[in-house]
Amino acid sequence: MKTKAFQDYYPDHLSHCYGCGKLNEHGYKIKTVWDGDETLSTFTPKSYHTAVPGFVYGGLIASLIDCHGTGSAAAAMYKKENREMDAEPSFRFLTGSLNVKYLKPTPIDCTLQIRGSIREISGKKVTVDVKVIANGDITATGEVVTIQVPDKYIKEIIKRVAK
Amino acid sequence: MKTKAFQDYYPDHLSHCYGCGKLNEHGYKIKTVWDGDETLSTFTPKSYHTAVPGFVYGGLIASLIDCHGTGSAAAAMYKKENREMDAEPSFRFLTGSLNVKYLKPTPIDCTLQIRGSIREISGKKVTVDVKVIANGDITATGEVVTIQVPDKYIKEIIKRVAK
Repeated sequence: MKTKAFQDYYPDHLSHCYGCGKLNEHGYKIKTVWDGDETLSTFTPKSYHTAVPGFVYGGLIASLIDCHGTGSAAAAMYKKENREMDAEPSFRFLTGSLNVKYLKPTPIDCTLQIRGSIREISGKKVTVDVKVIANGDITATGEVVTIQVPDKYIKEIIKRVAK
Repeated sequence: MKTKAFQDYYPDHLSHCYGCGKLNEHGYKIKTVWDGDETLSTFTPKSYHTAVPGFVYGGLIASLIDCHGTGSAAAAMYKKENREMDAEPSFRFLTGSLNVKYLKPTPIDCTLQIRGSIREISGKKVTVDVKVIANGDITATGEVVTIQVPDKYIKEIIKRVAK
């Protein structure tokens, strides 16, 4: 049986993200799973996700790190409480800050691995360290500081703009 | 006469970036100009660039800040030397690090302003402070540390992967 990704547990109103929403037909549909104590996403860039020909543009790398980070934060919080990812009350995380270091050009013609490790869970804040790996090389690293927000708050802001 | 954007001066081999390349038909085609001492890009998100419905996903915001930063860095270096942006030797900048703080949700149904100010030019390093503004509100801030690289280096890495 295929392992269910973190994002497969997101409810529909949280599944429209261009980075990781299963209902966003235009988006990247990033999927993240546990791999031991690390979290792992894989992503194959499109030929047009270029910085210069042959290499991935920095904005995609930042996007992958960001969505990987929020997904990993939610999964880490559920794991800490020893609960299934669809159990209530739900854990939802938004990005507070995103720091990316570009170490070398990231080749575009391969499947990227995005690996996260949970640095800290402190109250409603989860910090995730992320590496982007292409052909075995770490090409970028990231730090994602995520903040837990009540699902009620997210539903309210969606409702407000839908009016 | 319409002001020529920084990106309009980029040579063809640097015009394939998904964020800011005029030759990338799938990309965002970000255009940046001087507005007094600040640099300014405007961008209207597509309806599917969502985080949650009604709001822009963080990866797009990071992408806009990134390309705005590298364009601003090049323009600042040309300005410092009082040269036109297509004058040789050319100034090319890659992102070394990108830090983004998400202050509040960014509404999707408006044209965003991305404003940069040049914090520091130090040797081959230019640091740019960036604000993302939606309907007059600053919704995110960024710091882009860019590094000047010789055009020759960029041409070489493109040539290497093209083999």
